[in-house]
Amino acid sequence: MDNFTFYAPTYFDFGRGAELHTAELIQKFGGSRVLLHYGGGSIKKSGLYDRIVAVLDGAGIPFVELGGVKPNPRSGLVRQGIELCKREKIDFILAVGGGSTIDSSKAIAAGSLYDGDFMDFYRGKAVVEKALPIGTVLTIAAAGSEGSPNTVITDEENQVKKGMKSDYLRPRFSVLNPELTCTLPPYQTAAGATDIMAHICERYFSNTEESEITDRLCEAVLKTIICEAPRVIEDPGNYEARANIMWAGMLAHNNVCGVGREQDWASHHIEHELSALYDVTHGAGLAVVMPKWMRYVLDKNPDKLVLFAARVWDIPMDEERPRETALKGIEAFEAFLKSIGMPSTLGEVGVGREDIEKMTDKLLGKKKTEGKYVELEREDVIRIYESCL
Amino acid sequence: MDNFTFYAPTYFDFGRGAELHTAELIQKFGGSRVLLHYGGGSIKKSGLYDRIVAVLDGAGIPFVELGGVKPNPRSGLVRQGIELCKREKIDFILAVGGGSTIDSSKAIAAGSLYDGDFMDFYRGKAVVEKALPIGTVLTIAAAGSEGSPNTVITDEENQVKKGMKSDYLRPRFSVLNPELTCTLPPYQTAAGATDIMAHICERYFSNTEESEITDRLCEAVLKTIICEAPRVIEDPGNYEARANIMWAGMLAHNNVCGVGREQDWASHHIEHELSALYDVTHGAGLAVVMPKWMRYVLDKNPDKLVLFAARVWDIPMDEERPRETALKGIEAFEAFLKSIGMPSTLGEVGVGREDIEKMTDKLLGKKKTEGKYVELEREDVIRIYESCL
Repeated sequence: MDNFTFYAPTYFDFGRGAELHTAELIQKFGGSRVLLHYGGGSIKKSGLYDRIVAVLDGAGIPFVELGGVKPNPRSGLVRQGIELCKREKIDFILAVGGGSTIDSSKAIAAGSLYDGDFMDFYRGKAVVEKALPIGTVLTIAAAGSEGSPNTVITDEENQVKKGMKSDYLRPRFSVLNPELTCTLPPYQTAAGATDIMAHICERYFSNTEESEITDRLCEAVLKTIICEAPRVIEDPGNYEARANIMWAGMLAHNNVCGVGREQDWASHHIEHELSALYDVTHGAGLAVVMPKWMRYVLDKNPDKLVLFAARVWDIPMDEERPRETALKGIEAFEAFLKSIGMPSTLGEVGVGREDIEKMTDKLLGKKKTEGKYVELEREDVIRIYESCL
Repeated sequence: MDNFTFYAPTYFDFGRGAELHTAELIQKFGGSRVLLHYGGGSIKKSGLYDRIVAVLDGAGIPFVELGGVKPNPRSGLVRQGIELCKREKIDFILAVGGGSTIDSSKAIAAGSLYDGDFMDFYRGKAVVEKALPIGTVLTIAAAGSEGSPNTVITDEENQVKKGMKSDYLRPRFSVLNPELTCTLPPYQTAAGATDIMAHICERYFSNTEESEITDRLCEAVLKTIICEAPRVIEDPGNYEARANIMWAGMLAHNNVCGVGREQDWASHHIEHELSALYDVTHGAGLAVVMPKWMRYVLDKNPDKLVLFAARVWDIPMDEERPRETALKGIEAFEAFLKSIGMPSTLGEVGVGREDIEKMTDKLLGKKKTEGKYVELEREDVIRIYESCL
């Protein structure tokens, strides 16, 4: 196990009706002038917007609003948010929505206390040293941004998704009410479940030996999604299954499942180029890329794929032919993704061959390789994209 | 899944040499005058005391010392510590040791900012509303106090162990260097591993349905201890196995494995009376009590014991005879505890029949029942003690 630090100080308020505690949570964490940040009309249709406004008004907390966050959140709206926070002397950001809204809020939080362009943080030109505090009311189990230090923004000028992380960006509190996810369409639900599984896989496929506890935690989250995702596809209003997925989604990305070892993230980065260029739903893109990445790296570094098959998918271990065991694990993963309605080829999400070279160049930038479990060179990335067609 | 809140803001610095960061961590979390609290001579023999003093001196952090914490930490020493903190205007407590030292520090932290007797908190007469911040340097994987809000103190006047918890008592930081545990004797190591398993079992045996994620996390920690504990008994200097146990020990008690459901704690409370009266090593007492509790409740509420057998001990499920499956799980647990050198009867830890009624009365106090998975009445508790003889 490698040396590590772990710090996850977010206060979670989980359960039915938890959004009604939002005002007291803002006050508990020192907020007095709030930016209410959200996406499209879904929180208005569902009544969540009205409930949040009512509790803020009820507590006498002044707020300004910025809606309009889109999936794969854009740099342009972040700039508007930063300007608004500075002008209105905002001291707390409340994100009501999914990962995109929370990631956008994190960008605004960092940018509001920074003199330069906030994209400096995402381009590796500056490090976050302070940020406005944020709280979240989560409406989809997927990105894990409600408990993570991470944020991903699409740079509109360059059509590229860029991520960064900082402990200053961990939400002070997150409200997780599984009821709020019960109205999500099956496709979004399944894409969220896939994203959660991918967050674990990127941490599970590691060359660092001897981190049994972290392996076991990863398997626990994957097993939970494998158990619960089909139940919500079958019965979207199943509160209990939604609750398990929602909490698993947080655990999948607050890094408790990743400490003490090298992580990979190649599949995520390969997918980010798809989302940036074609606006593919992130989880759906991952459903295509992740198993193809597994097939590609299988012969280069099979060990963890064998464990994945045996422990996560209960494939009986064939000691004589471990490759076959691993392959059955990948097939089980593919069958599972298909069963919850996820795509398995880029064609299904409207992506063709023509941009593969361009996406590969953007992905690698100045780097020679991508990923750690197997270090992928340019040719490897191209072959993985091609295998996804 | 029940509604819950979860808040675990401790900063963990994990790995080789981590104790050398102690001074900068104290400063990061605002400490300027420190109480250095520790137990007996082991940290002096090992050189850890000298290293800690050197980093404090090197950073120019003034400190006063209070050693002498004993296993099952005593109220008398806590009172000395409170007096010392008040007199010396201490603003940060550094606990260097195991669960007893950390629990004693928590009591001092709460008592130093309270006008009444600190035992009020443990007797349910007052609630902690503020406390001095504490940091820890952990020397044994067992109690999980390094990441928990809990503390247990032996009330010397009444020979009774009393516990309490408060988020104000969660350590600001904890330094976890597995190397520091490599010199522990096998018996202490095994007792620590047993305590870790018990912290999980008290959370696993729950009547709350539909918390798959929490079940899976519990199983992950148990599986890790089952894998790693025999390795350190065989080879006490095995850093990797020590590291896995140390991190598992924190996870077992910061409540990430217990959220969203009713917990039990009968075995812990039954054992606390043994520790209070006979100064039994807590983990060794649990090794006796826990399996006997399982055997006692088996016929009253078998379901979770069946799951425990199947998922934790890999007992093939006998659908026709689930009781047999569960029993094999308990037997596997007993065999495991024996294999790592733990006792299985009260006779082995020097406890006889004569105090059973007295312990039962103390345990129940004014309560009618103990535990939740099965509510134990007075007669049940007596029978469990008797079955432990």
